[in-house]
Amino acid sequence: MKITPRIEAKVRASFARQTMMATLGAQLLDLGHGSARIAAPILPGSRQQQDAGHAGLTFAIGDSAAGYAALTMFDEGDEIMTVEMKINLLRPALGGPRVHGGRVLEPGRRITVVAAEVFAETAGDRKQIAVLQGTMIPVGLSTD
Amino acid sequence: MKITPRIEAKVRASFARQTMMATLGAQLLDLGHGSARIAAPILPGSRQQQDAGHAGLTFAIGDSAAGYAALTMFDEGDEIMTVEMKINLLRPALGGPRVHGGRVLEPGRRITVVAAEVFAETAGDRKQIAVLQGTMIPVGLSTD
Amino acid sequence: MKITPRIEAKVRASFARQTMMATLGAQLLDLGHGSARIAAPILPGSRQQQDAGHAGLTFAIGDSAAGYAALTMFDEGDEIMTVEMKINLLRPALGGPRVHGGRVLEPGRRITVVAAEVFAETAGDRKQIAVLQGTMIPVGLSTD
Amino acid sequence: MKITPRIEAKVRASFARQTMMATLGAQLLDLGHGSARIAAPILPGSRQQQDAGHAGLTFAIGDSAAGYAALTMFDEGDEIMTVEMKINLLRPALGGPRVHGGRVLEPGRRITVVAAEVFAETAGDRKQIAVLQGTMIPVGLSTD
Repeated sequence: MKITPRIEAKVRASFARQTMMATLGAQLLDLGHGSARIAAPILPGSRQQQDAGHAGLTFAIGDSAAGYAALTMFDEGDEIMTVEMKINLLRPALGGPRVHGGRVLEPGRRITVVAAEVFAETAGDRKQIAVLQGTMIPVGLSTD
Repeated sequence: MKITPRIEAKVRASFARQTMMATLGAQLLDLGHGSARIAAPILPGSRQQQDAGHAGLTFAIGDSAAGYAALTMFDEGDEIMTVEMKINLLRPALGGPRVHGGRVLEPGRRITVVAAEVFAETAGDRKQIAVLQGTMIPVGLSTD
Repeated sequence: MKITPRIEAKVRASFARQTMMATLGAQLLDLGHGSARIAAPILPGSRQQQDAGHAGLTFAIGDSAAGYAALTMFDEGDEIMTVEMKINLLRPALGGPRVHGGRVLEPGRRITVVAAEVFAETAGDRKQIAVLQGTMIPVGLSTD
Repeated sequence: MKITPRIEAKVRASFARQTMMATLGAQLLDLGHGSARIAAPILPGSRQQQDAGHAGLTFAIGDSAAGYAALTMFDEGDEIMTVEMKINLLRPALGGPRVHGGRVLEPGRRITVVAAEVFAETAGDRKQIAVLQGTMIPVGLSTD
């Protein structure tokens, strides 16, 4: 489902302000109503001790994909914050860039439940690396 | 409880190989048998859209503190990997450096259950920012 | 994908031994390779303080659905145990019976990652109540 | 820290309405400001396939201990609901009765973060069985 240009602009502006996304080389791909996709490589500075991508990399971008999926369903004045997030890592983050797809499972004014999946997509192949499940809350200008 | 110099050297060498820790400005403070503490600032490149520390920063270092706490209890030939980790964020990561304390709740050859707590420690004040709870598995040279 | 009659018999025998399932009035519906569905009413003895189904009911049966989904992928001699499980409750468990669908996200000899979804299915309507994500390990006769 | 008799009466009345607690044989022991302890046996009807206590038993009572710990910090008109809860099971629930201790990690009007620990306490011995970490929200008469 498509979102309005104003919501798209708001989400992209928020993403651009997240310096962590630039540090990790992440790019916001596409947005839908309740969904977001972010791509990120495994930069030389994002690795764990065995040269795979650090769990923090997978988490940071999965969490952002889930949060921006949620943000597409809120008013322009709202921001979103992560209350809690759980990640299961299905295999080591080896190889090329990852695509992190976030989606809203259940929207709500008080609590929005989100999920994200992380895939390694290489030529002709697509392997799931991680799955995330968590909770976002809106932080509006008027409510906090 | 103290650890042997060989285990200490092994854990510190592993930490030094995690390029993500250098990217985030993290420093390994002290290690005990089943515990580890890591300090990290909120670097200009580690922020979310409202200039607080990104949830991915808090997660990445809390996860590493928990993982290195676990690693102190394994043999020199073993490595540790995160199977799953859950984080609850108690308040926005504002202000100065954080201290991430990891500890082992239950060690085991197959499954090691870990926790971590993240604190903002400023002059005379100490506020908890986040709490993590997760599972590590050993990845030994001979077992995988 | 279908499972062999021997695996089906093994899983159904294990379910029948779980006295908690009888206490909660749960019935094992269908099994596939990596999937399981369990139905359960909200019995008078399964309620929280506002007469909705207790979170423990939703958890207990979602966890079992996930565990039996995993068990379909193991040998006859193996048992499965829950290492950890996280549940997000999307809305109060009101009304009629629930269907708990478990599935395997990633099978493995050491770690099997599972998920479950809980739905309230009434005439012409289907609402999701909860989502679970967790980890199972095999407990074979020879390995533990 | 002690709580007022009115809050104590309110929490005990809520516990008494949870039919699930009676089904599982649970008893509310003591309450403090932000803490609660519940004892429960492993009844014949609360078992998994190997005769240990079902994970749903450990979860149900740990979740209630955490929820009632939170409820001690709210006004008389409020109720508490579980938003999400994660449990790590440290060892099988064998043997005698368990004590489930819940506590508030961070109270809040919008979000209250809680934890619970489950112990098997037998003569001279005390073993931890499980640890839970989750989120509660108040559901006041006026706010929902």
